Amino acid sequence: MDRNELRELFQKTADGELTPDEAVMKLRLKPFEELGYARPDHHRGLRTGIPEVIYGAGKTPSQIAGIADALLNGGQKTVIITRLSSENAQRLSELIEIQYHEDARIAIAGKLPEPDTDGIILIATGGTSDIPVAEEAAVTAEACGNRVKRLYDVGVAGIHRLLAHADDIMKARAIVAVAGMEGALASVIGGLADCPVIAVPTSVGYGASFGGVAALLSMLNSCASGVSVVNIDNGFGAGYLASMINHIGTN
Amino acid sequence: MDRNELRELFQKTADGELTPDEAVMKLRLKPFEELGYARPDHHRGLRTGIPEVIYGAGKTPSQIAGIADALLNGGQKTVIITRLSSENAQRLSELIEIQYHEDARIAIAGKLPEPDTDGIILIATGGTSDIPVAEEAAVTAEACGNRVKRLYDVGVAGIHRLLAHADDIMKARAIVAVAGMEGALASVIGGLADCPVIAVPTSVGYGASFGGVAALLSMLNSCASGVSVVNIDNGFGAGYLASMINHIGTN
Amino acid sequence: MDRNELRELFQKTADGELTPDEAVMKLRLKPFEELGYARPDHHRGLRTGIPEVIYGAGKTPSQIAGIADALLNGGQKTVIITRLSSENAQRLSELIEIQYHEDARIAIAGKLPEPDTDGIILIATGGTSDIPVAEEAAVTAEACGNRVKRLYDVGVAGIHRLLAHADDIMKARAIVAVAGMEGALASVIGGLADCPVIAVPTSVGYGASFGGVAALLSMLNSCASGVSVVNIDNGFGAGYLASMINHIGTN
Amino acid sequence: MDRNELRELFQKTADGELTPDEAVMKLRLKPFEELGYARPDHHRGLRTGIPEVIYGAGKTPSQIAGIADALLNGGQKTVIITRLSSENAQRLSELIEIQYHEDARIAIAGKLPEPDTDGIILIATGGTSDIPVAEEAAVTAEACGNRVKRLYDVGVAGIHRLLAHADDIMKARAIVAVAGMEGALASVIGGLADCPVIAVPTSVGYGASFGGVAALLSMLNSCASGVSVVNIDNGFGAGYLASMINHIGTN
Amino acid sequence: MDRNELRELFQKTADGELTPDEAVMKLRLKPFEELGYARPDHHRGLRTGIPEVIYGAGKTPSQIAGIADALLNGGQKTVIITRLSSENAQRLSELIEIQYHEDARIAIAGKLPEPDTDGIILIATGGTSDIPVAEEAAVTAEACGNRVKRLYDVGVAGIHRLLAHADDIMKARAIVAVAGMEGALASVIGGLADCPVIAVPTSVGYGASFGGVAALLSMLNSCASGVSVVNIDNGFGAGYLASMINHIGTN
Amino acid sequence: MDRNELRELFQKTADGELTPDEAVMKLRLKPFEELGYARPDHHRGLRTGIPEVIYGAGKTPSQIAGIADALLNGGQKTVIITRLSSENAQRLSELIEIQYHEDARIAIAGKLPEPDTDGIILIATGGTSDIPVAEEAAVTAEACGNRVKRLYDVGVAGIHRLLAHADDIMKARAIVAVAGMEGALASVIGGLADCPVIAVPTSVGYGASFGGVAALLSMLNSCASGVSVVNIDNGFGAGYLASMINHIGTN
Amino acid sequence: MDRNELRELFQKTADGELTPDEAVMKLRLKPFEELGYARPDHHRGLRTGIPEVIYGAGKTPSQIAGIADALLNGGQKTVIITRLSSENAQRLSELIEIQYHEDARIAIAGKLPEPDTDGIILIATGGTSDIPVAEEAAVTAEACGNRVKRLYDVGVAGIHRLLAHADDIMKARAIVAVAGMEGALASVIGGLADCPVIAVPTSVGYGASFGGVAALLSMLNSCASGVSVVNIDNGFGAGYLASMINHIGTN
Amino acid sequence: MDRNELRELFQKTADGELTPDEAVMKLRLKPFEELGYARPDHHRGLRTGIPEVIYGAGKTPSQIAGIADALLNGGQKTVIITRLSSENAQRLSELIEIQYHEDARIAIAGKLPEPDTDGIILIATGGTSDIPVAEEAAVTAEACGNRVKRLYDVGVAGIHRLLAHADDIMKARAIVAVAGMEGALASVIGGLADCPVIAVPTSVGYGASFGGVAALLSMLNSCASGVSVVNIDNGFGAGYLASMINHIGTN
Repeated sequence: MDRNELRELFQKTADGELTPDEAVMKLRLKPFEELGYARPDHHRGLRTGIPEVIYGAGKTPSQIAGIADALLNGGQKTVIITRLSSENAQRLSELIEIQYHEDARIAIAGKLPEPDTDGIILIATGGTSDIPVAEEAAVTAEACGNRVKRLYDVGVAGIHRLLAHADDIMKARAIVAVAGMEGALASVIGGLADCPVIAVPTSVGYGASFGGVAALLSMLNSCASGVSVVNIDNGFGAGYLASMINHIGTN
Repeated sequence: MDRNELRELFQKTADGELTPDEAVMKLRLKPFEELGYARPDHHRGLRTGIPEVIYGAGKTPSQIAGIADALLNGGQKTVIITRLSSENAQRLSELIEIQYHEDARIAIAGKLPEPDTDGIILIATGGTSDIPVAEEAAVTAEACGNRVKRLYDVGVAGIHRLLAHADDIMKARAIVAVAGMEGALASVIGGLADCPVIAVPTSVGYGASFGGVAALLSMLNSCASGVSVVNIDNGFGAGYLASMINHIGTN
Repeated sequence: MDRNELRELFQKTADGELTPDEAVMKLRLKPFEELGYARPDHHRGLRTGIPEVIYGAGKTPSQIAGIADALLNGGQKTVIITRLSSENAQRLSELIEIQYHEDARIAIAGKLPEPDTDGIILIATGGTSDIPVAEEAAVTAEACGNRVKRLYDVGVAGIHRLLAHADDIMKARAIVAVAGMEGALASVIGGLADCPVIAVPTSVGYGASFGGVAALLSMLNSCASGVSVVNIDNGFGAGYLASMINHIGTN
Repeated sequence: MDRNELRELFQKTADGELTPDEAVMKLRLKPFEELGYARPDHHRGLRTGIPEVIYGAGKTPSQIAGIADALLNGGQKTVIITRLSSENAQRLSELIEIQYHEDARIAIAGKLPEPDTDGIILIATGGTSDIPVAEEAAVTAEACGNRVKRLYDVGVAGIHRLLAHADDIMKARAIVAVAGMEGALASVIGGLADCPVIAVPTSVGYGASFGGVAALLSMLNSCASGVSVVNIDNGFGAGYLASMINHIGTN
Repeated sequence: MDRNELRELFQKTADGELTPDEAVMKLRLKPFEELGYARPDHHRGLRTGIPEVIYGAGKTPSQIAGIADALLNGGQKTVIITRLSSENAQRLSELIEIQYHEDARIAIAGKLPEPDTDGIILIATGGTSDIPVAEEAAVTAEACGNRVKRLYDVGVAGIHRLLAHADDIMKARAIVAVAGMEGALASVIGGLADCPVIAVPTSVGYGASFGGVAALLSMLNSCASGVSVVNIDNGFGAGYLASMINHIGTN
Repeated sequence: MDRNELRELFQKTADGELTPDEAVMKLRLKPFEELGYARPDHHRGLRTGIPEVIYGAGKTPSQIAGIADALLNGGQKTVIITRLSSENAQRLSELIEIQYHEDARIAIAGKLPEPDTDGIILIATGGTSDIPVAEEAAVTAEACGNRVKRLYDVGVAGIHRLLAHADDIMKARAIVAVAGMEGALASVIGGLADCPVIAVPTSVGYGASFGGVAALLSMLNSCASGVSVVNIDNGFGAGYLASMINHIGTN
Repeated sequence: MDRNELRELFQKTADGELTPDEAVMKLRLKPFEELGYARPDHHRGLRTGIPEVIYGAGKTPSQIAGIADALLNGGQKTVIITRLSSENAQRLSELIEIQYHEDARIAIAGKLPEPDTDGIILIATGGTSDIPVAEEAAVTAEACGNRVKRLYDVGVAGIHRLLAHADDIMKARAIVAVAGMEGALASVIGGLADCPVIAVPTSVGYGASFGGVAALLSMLNSCASGVSVVNIDNGFGAGYLASMINHIGTN
Repeated sequence: MDRNELRELFQKTADGELTPDEAVMKLRLKPFEELGYARPDHHRGLRTGIPEVIYGAGKTPSQIAGIADALLNGGQKTVIITRLSSENAQRLSELIEIQYHEDARIAIAGKLPEPDTDGIILIATGGTSDIPVAEEAAVTAEACGNRVKRLYDVGVAGIHRLLAHADDIMKARAIVAVAGMEGALASVIGGLADCPVIAVPTSVGYGASFGGVAALLSMLNSCASGVSVVNIDNGFGAGYLASMINHIGTN
């Protein structure tokens, strides 16, 4: 039941076609969504520039093309397709027009929006192996209309590389800190920054890194204020959250 | 917004006091509960004989007495108070009339219902140390109107003790299998029974029992069909679920 | 020793062919089963409509065909074959007649029974990736003579999708809640339902989902009453248990 | 070496007292801080209204009083003292003037600031046992100049209680979701909210909750976008981060 | 139903008091034990010299005294009471005559048997803190009629201390290796011995010993043949098993 | 330094070629083995009928053939080659004469010994998937000169199948209990047997079996006396230990 | 058998009192130590200035006093007593003369040695709560004759505090990095230092620090070269190892 | 900003081209490295004989060749390339001249340095499967200018093999102990050695070895002093640290 159906229900009551009691009965079992609460993702999708997201893993290129087409035809300006292998991207590009970001494993259908806020999201990694996760965050943030600054391979074992960019850290409105192994990057950045730091542990490492658990625990135990954590390798979630933070006060 | 308020909204629309659009607007932000979906626990509470439950841990005897009084005055026939230490039970008994089951750490206020179904819930333990958890299940089930048969200390290391009661197992409508240490009781009973078996791992044990984890894993991996598991030491949950199962077809 | 052999033993004693002491000696070492306790699964198998189950993993198509033939010739009406890859299903279908449910990885040999109870088993999933496990539960339940209602992709992050089907939840006699990642579906459904909820954690997820452990722990810690848990990805076990519950009072 | 010392070094070079090479040598081993990068926490402390924080655990009341006095005399308007037992709060209050928030285990010395932003921080809990952690977040946020709305005991097992406040969720600029046991609250709120959700797992629970691990994993695996996680029971960290987010665009 | 009852059943059939069919019916539901399989522990108890065991934890001194009296009066020569605190031992000794082994936390009621086999059980510990667990094993073994040789504080970090007793290792018929921390003792002894080595991890240690888990894993992964493991701190189990092994061929 | 060299050293001292001090000096740094302690595995190898063992994994067929040849030429009667894939076994059989046991992944070179003791080792499994591990134990035991009785697929979920063989359990001199999933077989057998039970957890299972951890914990927590545990899937270790136990008193 | 006994054996052979064969026989079963290999700890103890260590936990003050007296009388110059509570230190000081270091929980009996090497051991902590573990390392190192520089509360969340002491890091010959929570200190120091860094995780922290596990994993996964790790809270081990490293080339 | 640039800054101030204030401003935001602190690895790289390290995993042969060329042209004498598969080594050798160590998976470009210290690094393994990790350590150490002695397959289950080399242990300046499974080698060596022992757990093993965790925990809990631990399979880290220790006092 959308707003029109709801309006019709009241109209029928106003017209005497339904008694108030009958209307109550009809309404009583109607679920939440149908009372006008837009399904949140749909809700978000209707705002200009906020892209819909298609989780690409486990979908065929033709399925993805179909969904993307429908969204674009429905007025969506940008569609993000995540976790898309380069092989599937190749096949998808034969069906619809996309920009494929190989490191990020993300394809963009439609138009990449211009940044709609002055704030900068800084995305830093501890090592070069963390870059794919960082790119997933970066491309997601860009597709959501953010300016992104990348600062890769600034792990804490060579702290001077990070400190050389202390002003970038101090000027960012949100920071995504991506690191595997000992995951200490988030704490060091958290100690230098005045803005929220979203820590993304990665599964980079071996032995007692346990597929990202060491970095995850390290980040959860950060002694720096303003640091929070998302799931291991969840670059998309970090980019999305950074965009949310970066848009506060703009809408 | 309860049903009356909802009716009033339609009435006002029928009376022309509100246009249909105004009514839609008023209704649009109203939450779920207020449309007449009873709060489930309240809903349950209004059925005859189904007791309300007060989680006793962390509440003072006078707080408990106050809640129990309110419930009994509101028409509730039985009130279960769980996780109540014997010390607090003593103090509570000076405030309101209760029956205290020390092993189960449960107090009953009001009237214990007569069994309202012929089905029998069998509650078995692997050892004597598991009895407090089993009693929590047993008293909960009795307070919900079930016949309960106790079969304690029939652990699998002395399998003949369990087999001596094979007919009890075969006649039960639901079985609660309570065991710590290696937790194998659930599997053996599950292999003999035709009815649902609710497995309750207990924190009884030492060393590599890890506070009930060994029993929990053992029960989750049961190769017998019809076995499901609740949290470690969760006698109340098992008794409640067994009662649900035992009442199927009776209401 | 079946009942006939046992009878013969007593007959021989009555006839004087054996002294009582000799009979005791003969009987003394005889095992349980041979005294007339049917092997439980056999016992179940002889009831009309309750299918035998063949665990398909690790068996060759011809082995499976052999077992299924024997069961069907022995009077069994329905045979469930679980964990059967589509490749093996193809080869099996060349040997015996089967219906293959690809999502569920289950083949049915013989006749699928008509539902023999009015109760409905609701099977819900958090996401689309949980569907294979849910289908394993659904097809198992159907093969056991149950009416099944599927409610897929109603995860808690879009709670309105679930609430839109609140009446299905309220009308079910047993619910199977299948979810990976954070596994919160079971708690939310458990809070809305009056019937037993069987929670099935799935291995869907990545990073700190640890192959289903996050969902498993979440479900074990559910604060809703009436929820119990089976092993990760154990759709068969959940469907079987739901059928047990749904048939209570019918046999 | 602060800026003055640095200036002096150049001055001496300009004056010919030091050759450029001697100056390089002097500077070469000087650490980072002394070049003018303020120590971040100090930096923050000098901004109006942003309180300094004293971690109260493991400090004596007189130590705390000494530090607080120094800070207040140094121009600090508000001092937050966290993890302060009521016993130590009592003794502290005999030394300096404080407001003590017992649930939150936080004392405030100095003046609680007026809210300096219109945004609202919503703080929700799954149960009543989670309230102390939530209050730690709430009082922290208030002491940082935020408007806070509390929404306690709205756990997902009674989802209607949460939905009745859907508009609070939709209006917040940042949300702190505090829950133990299965920790599903964060996902459900994350699905309803458009703003960042900071999830705080609590150590509330027993058995397989493993002191908050079940809730932590559940929250890390949230399928809702915009959710990030802090350490178990870290109410202070969540409140501080929520304040950071709520002040974006205001300074 | 014991053997006499069973005999009576056949007698009645022989006497014509029961038809064979009636006898079958009577027998059919009789459980295992009653057919003459002695309850195993009882069975063991009736052999000369093999003690009954009372698990002392969680029993009052008077309960223990009652059970021990009954056993001794029933013909039992030795009764082992394990996990008995020195306080309870003191109180027990006022009720019945016991020998109390404080390190082992074991009391012996009745007569300690003479060794009834020539084989020697060697019990070794890695450190002095492991001695209580080792003594539990040693006293158990002695109470079961074994000669025991103690070899304490011979941990692998000072391997010469162990090697100085290589001949004891080579002459033993069963060895109990008790160690906490890194638990390497079992492997080293296993490499020197020709007889079964029962490894007992202890909870001695700190930090990453995780209450005995490090030693447990070390022992399970022993590269020496002939090593098996019992639960953390399970001295009784090791002593009992060592006695079983040492008595092979003697009964 | 073997015994001859040692003798020579004393001889030279007796002959005056070395002063006692020179002899001490020569001897002082000599390692353990060279004083005559045979390398234990060698030591064992020289006894008649006790086979040498070659760990086949990671060795080429020609390497294995070389080692086996050397051992057989050196007087060894039987050589066990474990963890040998059927593919490598095929290639090995082209180089030397072997008997290959495919289930057990063991090849025997040389002559399989006749049993040299009357005792029987019983090897039981919970399911059919556990058979490869059980066969590794069985063939190992047979190659060490033991009579082995196999009792497969007697898991506790169908306890009657196990009880039907209670006399086998009671007559064995050592039992190897092999089980995955919930691993309860060891406890049930341990409760019935009078002899040592060696429990072998297997990695059979899925989900919360965690590759054998559930079975391992279950077995370590067995409440039956006389049960000890070896590593997950360690059939060889169990068979070797069972042989050790079975030969006690025979050499 | 010490060197004298050994010499006597050869002497007797030289003297003809023993035949070479008899001597071989006597020697054959003699253990390692008795051939002249000093027991390593004893060996160390006899070098000037290297202290003996008494693990104080679980020993009574009089036991400790007895051992310390014996050592000092035997020529030992310094005796370290670790893990000594202040209460026991008080009682010990009534028996023998000690210097007690309360933070480190270490008492020194005898004479603290002068530093016997120019190298400096730097001991750094992340926070103030890590100081007791750091002091255990520091006092141990001092008692072993090292110069120690302490650098406390230089955690990575305020990286400038650490960098302000970069020259101390660069001048040290060994560094002990002590940290709880996220444990990143070791990596940052490891990136700055040219000398070995010994990382000591501490159990400081809460929630997902899991008693030091988060710091331990972080340190094991350090991406800086030259970092190794000791057990959680093992200050003594770190101090001892640092002393070993600092004395390389000096003896 | 390198030293020259810095000098230029002072020169310009001396020359009056910059005022002291302008110079301060220019310098103020300059990062750490540029003030003359050589990036540590670079710093190390400039010393004679200390090789640069290229982590080969995840780099193409042509990338590696490019980096190695640049380093060698820049004056580097030795370049270590770690984690290089034999396939990639083959392809790399077509691009630049390398020595490839297959076991170690390390290639050396440039000139292998002569040992520049008399100290010996002993590298020991528990089994033959640990050799690849040991070789990674050995070749790393050799490439850093150390004498290395290998002592492989001396696991504790055959302790005599290790003891036969006790003098090697006693003469080493640093020892790397590499072991999987139960990891006890480090403790035994630690008890015999006077020098630092670097323990390297390996992922060799199966079942409850958990990919090296059992060995890791065993090594962390070593009761021998002077033992520290690096990550599972981290042969490079151990070799590098051993070289650091072996060079103390030489530079």
